[in-house]
Amino acid sequence: MDRVDIAIIGTGPGGVSAALTAVNRNKTVLLLGSRNMSEKMTKAHEIRNYPGLPAVSGEEMAEAFRKHLDAMGVQITEERVGAVYAMGDYFALQIGETMQEAEAVILATGVVQAAALPGEKELLGRGVSTCATCDAALYRGKTAAVIGYSPREEAEAAFLSEVCAKVMYFPMYKEEPTLPAAVQVIREKPIGIAQENGKRIVKTEAGAFEADGVFVLREAVAADQLVPGLETEGAHVKVNRKMETNLPGVFACGDLTGLPYQYVKAAGEGNVAAISAASWLDQKKHKK
Amino acid sequence: MDRVDIAIIGTGPGGVSAALTAVNRNKTVLLLGSRNMSEKMTKAHEIRNYPGLPAVSGEEMAEAFRKHLDAMGVQITEERVGAVYAMGDYFALQIGETMQEAEAVILATGVVQAAALPGEKELLGRGVSTCATCDAALYRGKTAAVIGYSPREEAEAAFLSEVCAKVMYFPMYKEEPTLPAAVQVIREKPIGIAQENGKRIVKTEAGAFEADGVFVLREAVAADQLVPGLETEGAHVKVNRKMETNLPGVFACGDLTGLPYQYVKAAGEGNVAAISAASWLDQKKHKK
Repeated sequence: MDRVDIAIIGTGPGGVSAALTAVNRNKTVLLLGSRNMSEKMTKAHEIRNYPGLPAVSGEEMAEAFRKHLDAMGVQITEERVGAVYAMGDYFALQIGETMQEAEAVILATGVVQAAALPGEKELLGRGVSTCATCDAALYRGKTAAVIGYSPREEAEAAFLSEVCAKVMYFPMYKEEPTLPAAVQVIREKPIGIAQENGKRIVKTEAGAFEADGVFVLREAVAADQLVPGLETEGAHVKVNRKMETNLPGVFACGDLTGLPYQYVKAAGEGNVAAISAASWLDQKKHKK
Repeated sequence: MDRVDIAIIGTGPGGVSAALTAVNRNKTVLLLGSRNMSEKMTKAHEIRNYPGLPAVSGEEMAEAFRKHLDAMGVQITEERVGAVYAMGDYFALQIGETMQEAEAVILATGVVQAAALPGEKELLGRGVSTCATCDAALYRGKTAAVIGYSPREEAEAAFLSEVCAKVMYFPMYKEEPTLPAAVQVIREKPIGIAQENGKRIVKTEAGAFEADGVFVLREAVAADQLVPGLETEGAHVKVNRKMETNLPGVFACGDLTGLPYQYVKAAGEGNVAAISAASWLDQKKHKK
């Protein structure tokens, strides 16, 4: 795929709104996320205060957003972004084993609800990964542990089982996982990750499990893990009223930028982020 | 009417969104505006980037918002606010000849599109008024000039003709005014307001018209005229990311707070303003 004007990461109300406005401004977009929109949205029982959609269920809102994207010809690319690198004149997004280029980036990844496990941040990139598609090849024929925060992560574990000699899966939710027989489901709650003798150890209350690689898979990755150099405040990305982050060409919207965690707030910010990104692109073009 | 928790001034997407969220937070609201919502909205040919309402006309959006307000039991009070006064512990809103009390205020009045006429700001409160309902009594049996920026102002001129000896009406739009015979329609464009010998003079390119009082009637009144002491930047009210203004208990949202002038941006800000106002009220209650 050629370099796009704006890569938008996330398909909650912020990302959807940003995509609609960017396309409306004649920008090319790559919208990365899920046709199910966001997990938070589809799980919502009833949303009463999104003006124009009275008392909708999250599923109904997701359907309304999908229809709107379809009507505007905006596709959703169902891929996970491993990292976003500022390359000077453009951005490189690591998507699986490929790289995608974009002139500007809008982050709409939501807020990381779960705190990192003890040891997780320290070992990230050294035996701990947040993206199976990106790093599976490193553990070919070896042992992988997968800590999955939602049933959506099961597909990643299944994929790993095709590559690795052994895969252990720790579901962080109540539903019964549907996985290939090759994946060993372990119903113990991980409480930390450690490193011993060149191996990673997933610690649980009851015991410890040794692996070569540990995959911690959540719907949302902490934004400063995704974009090196991004300025954050706790779980939130620092933005101004134009939705600009500290990195030129990187904008953010939605829950990621702070409270309140509200659908229409996110949609409003997505709109502003897209307009700011479009202006930024236009100015960059004039400078050339 | 008893003191309300939150008075919301304006029925564009910002005001509507603020009202829906405030009611959802169990706050009592007084929503002041028009069942036609905002003139800008109803005049919009097509709105393509309000997520969930694909390619709606402004009329369709207004209808969707009205239905949502109705479903949530939110009434629109079709009155114009003359001024908002901070009374220390609460706010007093001048509405016609009555006063309404509110614990907090959300401004969603839109942005004043037309620049003030030369002399208008200087003479405001000294023979120049922005509210016929408020100040008609001052010109009983006298001569009034009305500069009306939209057909909605004709009702105000008609009302003045019941009180004043003579009413001149200067329409600032193309449509033919529908007015009582007692109102003299003058098809000359005012270019300024002056004061001479205790009388006000409406100057046009072709001449000058003497009156005791001049009413300049626009849909949106400049916010710092409406709320004394409000900090502005050009045509916009200064707000932070919580939609707080410089005045404690006064919040703002929508076009009034700055570019971009977009429906979903306004709706998002209305949501944030309502949540901030609700938190502010809860804190105030705890202090008592």
